[in-house]
Amino acid sequence: MSLEILNELVALVRQNSYLKSSLALLEWDQQTKLPSQAGAFRAEQITFMAGEIHSRATDPRIGELLNELSTSELAEDPTSDHGATIRELKREYEKQIKLPNKLVQAIARASALSQQIWVEARRENDFSKFAPCLKEMFELKQEQADALGYDECRYDALLDEYEPYAKTSEVAAVLHALKDELVPLVAEISESGNQPKTEFLKRNFPIPAQEIFGREASAKIGFDYERGRLDLTHHPFCTELGPNDVRITTRYDDSFFNSAFFGILHEAGHGIYEQGLRSEFYGLPPGHYCSLGIHESQSRLWENLVGRATSFWTYFYSRAQQLFPTALGDVNKDEFVGAINQVSPSLIRVEADEATYDLHIIIRFQLEQAVIDGQLDTDDLPTAWNEKYQQYLGVQPDNDSVGVLQDIHWSAGLIGYFPTYSLGNLYASQFIDAASRDLGNLDELFQHGEFEPLKKWLNREIHERGMCFNSPELGEKVTGQGLSHEALMAHLRAKLEPIYAL
Amino acid sequence: MSLEILNELVALVRQNSYLKSSLALLEWDQQTKLPSQAGAFRAEQITFMAGEIHSRATDPRIGELLNELSTSELAEDPTSDHGATIRELKREYEKQIKLPNKLVQAIARASALSQQIWVEARRENDFSKFAPCLKEMFELKQEQADALGYDECRYDALLDEYEPYAKTSEVAAVLHALKDELVPLVAEISESGNQPKTEFLKRNFPIPAQEIFGREASAKIGFDYERGRLDLTHHPFCTELGPNDVRITTRYDDSFFNSAFFGILHEAGHGIYEQGLRSEFYGLPPGHYCSLGIHESQSRLWENLVGRATSFWTYFYSRAQQLFPTALGDVNKDEFVGAINQVSPSLIRVEADEATYDLHIIIRFQLEQAVIDGQLDTDDLPTAWNEKYQQYLGVQPDNDSVGVLQDIHWSAGLIGYFPTYSLGNLYASQFIDAASRDLGNLDELFQHGEFEPLKKWLNREIHERGMCFNSPELGEKVTGQGLSHEALMAHLRAKLEPIYAL
Repeated sequence: MSLEILNELVALVRQNSYLKSSLALLEWDQQTKLPSQAGAFRAEQITFMAGEIHSRATDPRIGELLNELSTSELAEDPTSDHGATIRELKREYEKQIKLPNKLVQAIARASALSQQIWVEARRENDFSKFAPCLKEMFELKQEQADALGYDECRYDALLDEYEPYAKTSEVAAVLHALKDELVPLVAEISESGNQPKTEFLKRNFPIPAQEIFGREASAKIGFDYERGRLDLTHHPFCTELGPNDVRITTRYDDSFFNSAFFGILHEAGHGIYEQGLRSEFYGLPPGHYCSLGIHESQSRLWENLVGRATSFWTYFYSRAQQLFPTALGDVNKDEFVGAINQVSPSLIRVEADEATYDLHIIIRFQLEQAVIDGQLDTDDLPTAWNEKYQQYLGVQPDNDSVGVLQDIHWSAGLIGYFPTYSLGNLYASQFIDAASRDLGNLDELFQHGEFEPLKKWLNREIHERGMCFNSPELGEKVTGQGLSHEALMAHLRAKLEPIYAL
Repeated sequence: MSLEILNELVALVRQNSYLKSSLALLEWDQQTKLPSQAGAFRAEQITFMAGEIHSRATDPRIGELLNELSTSELAEDPTSDHGATIRELKREYEKQIKLPNKLVQAIARASALSQQIWVEARRENDFSKFAPCLKEMFELKQEQADALGYDECRYDALLDEYEPYAKTSEVAAVLHALKDELVPLVAEISESGNQPKTEFLKRNFPIPAQEIFGREASAKIGFDYERGRLDLTHHPFCTELGPNDVRITTRYDDSFFNSAFFGILHEAGHGIYEQGLRSEFYGLPPGHYCSLGIHESQSRLWENLVGRATSFWTYFYSRAQQLFPTALGDVNKDEFVGAINQVSPSLIRVEADEATYDLHIIIRFQLEQAVIDGQLDTDDLPTAWNEKYQQYLGVQPDNDSVGVLQDIHWSAGLIGYFPTYSLGNLYASQFIDAASRDLGNLDELFQHGEFEPLKKWLNREIHERGMCFNSPELGEKVTGQGLSHEALMAHLRAKLEPIYAL
């Protein structure tokens, strides 16, 4: 009896997943293929689709079915596939019905339109052009937070969209502890007399060779190109358009090696997570990623903990020299590994090193909270941004394109999203320690090009669990410990102390 | 009062146009970008979307609004924007409500799945692999024809999907008259002692240079790349994803010049039509192409009547020699023009010359009618195909990949579509004569690279009229004459007599 009810519910949710993945295609296409003049219509189309999806997601029949199911025997074990399905669909339904359809459409429209204006404003280095969009978007997100409701602070309601069950105060505490150890470490590194050479990373790296190398390396670590694609974009991302259709994107700079290569490893890490979800649960909580913090742990793990390890380059460096003979012919492997692990406070988040990266996140996290709480006006964001960069990183942007305009997130309405990047860094270090515990010395594997044991471990321990556990529960289950900054700090020290002779 | 009703109707139709253009994107992506393993989910998604669109298109409210409007003053002038809107939406609504939603979904599913099987069957030259899909599709289309109803013959109901208001008997009569003059002309050409040299068209034409040339030429004739794209595919097509988003596709062969270049001009001709529709009527009959016959007239006009004219190459040939110095350095312009206008019976429709092309169409038209009328079994199509090729063209395919499996149409459910290609050839010749009458000597313009006067004339005379007239009415309005094979035959004789010294 309960199973019949569940089947009816699943059918309704599955139908909506066809619309959701159509919307995801409209958005992927907008970021990668859309003709320059087609933006206005695409924005209207996205608005309509978002409204349709919300209407279906709030179908009262879904509420009725969930009410019946949540007291049934199927819901008894909350971490079982059935239990998680009922729990998470109920949680989502109860959030969605709090949102007026008009607000959902207004946010979708503002997001689609203001991303286009953001691209222009960044290109023209003109914050004033973007300012009205930014103001409107933060106001809409305040309205969304108020509609959703919250216990401690308004930001909680937004954070929950990306990191379900997380609290702003808890995230702030762990990031605060992290910052307190990062700042002195970065200072110590800056003062070291042992700075690695890095100029060769800015030599000429022909784009066709970069593309070959990026595709080879991402396929080798486990991204399946029969179930995915790699395309060009302005602001790299990964999206999932179906159970066998995961698309990653990148951008190339022919005078900087790191940008595309580590970007591709990063997005491939996201893609490997999506490809590792159980496809029989597509569109349902057991086949859905746990949280964006866990998602980011997968991208950062492959990008940094694997991709910047000496053992990774023991395997890959000869291929790099073969593809880039002019740039790397006179550079030995250790010099190269030192260079790609250089720590240096800088302006651009996505190109930041592992040690300073989280300071970029803390800045955004604090600024977002201030605006959402009504303590900071969006027009004052450029000034506040520059002050924070001076304070935490000791650098100041020359212009807003490399400052407050650098990220796509606010234009896309992704407010409350940034802290999940730092959560990802923290989880990644804890997960790699747990994997080492289970699989033995990972460097032994990597130096022989054996990445599959780690990928399979991640599949089993993380990907295939979907949303059966929330992120703190999953972290605890996999690592035996709560979220902490200690694993990340230990990892950074172990890697950076020899390079900088600390 | 009537205007209010019309506005309500337009709003309902516009909403459905967002879903229709989302479905068009799903299909474009399927043909150009979809990862190899993602086909099954995409087919389910397309099926769902087709069902949704049909449900909305048959909303009884639309029927009520149309009933009120069709006796209102807005419907009085049937060729006005309001009149055409009401007339054509009513015609479409009355057709849609005859179709069961399950049948619409079944055809959409069969189409999405069997296109994938067709690609494999063609690659592996294995008709038996495709045969069950073909049988199912023809049965579904018979069912569709019976649901829609017809006066004279079942094929009429299918033809009407692509060429509204056309009758099979009328199309057959004009194609018969055309064939009676084409067959002796082709025979005369075959027997001529004056055959143009063509081997140089099969030299090496590097693909990057082909792409540059195709983009330059298509932009020059008027395809707007700020409102469109060019991508790679297996079977070239043009699709419209929004009022400023028209996408054309091609495939390159580095040892044959014609394939991509004339293919791009062809698809650009379709694209220029779509880009020339009035965007304020997007999704409505006055902003919709008239028929596929008229659509094809636009592609064939730019591909053949412009793109294979001596005057076109007076302007473009030095650029061709610059881009392909090895292949064309020792070939003069007249030799080149002779070669691209070679007439020679061949196996592949999309590569056929202007004189034999319509014989390929007549074969398909006759075979489709026979299957739809129940006189021919789909399993017997390969034999029947080969017999017809022997009869009309004097050639026989070595295998089914270059025979009955060559075209995508039947796998996609596009049955009744082929004759519109020949209608396009006929209309194209009549239109270019009318344009010459209005604009003077077109060759004078083309040889100086002036293509805009012709494009603007097409915009005004054809594109901007949308569906305000049906195709015979539009032909009459533009040319002052009814549909006839005479203009095409006169054009072929004028071009081919000097080349073949007939």
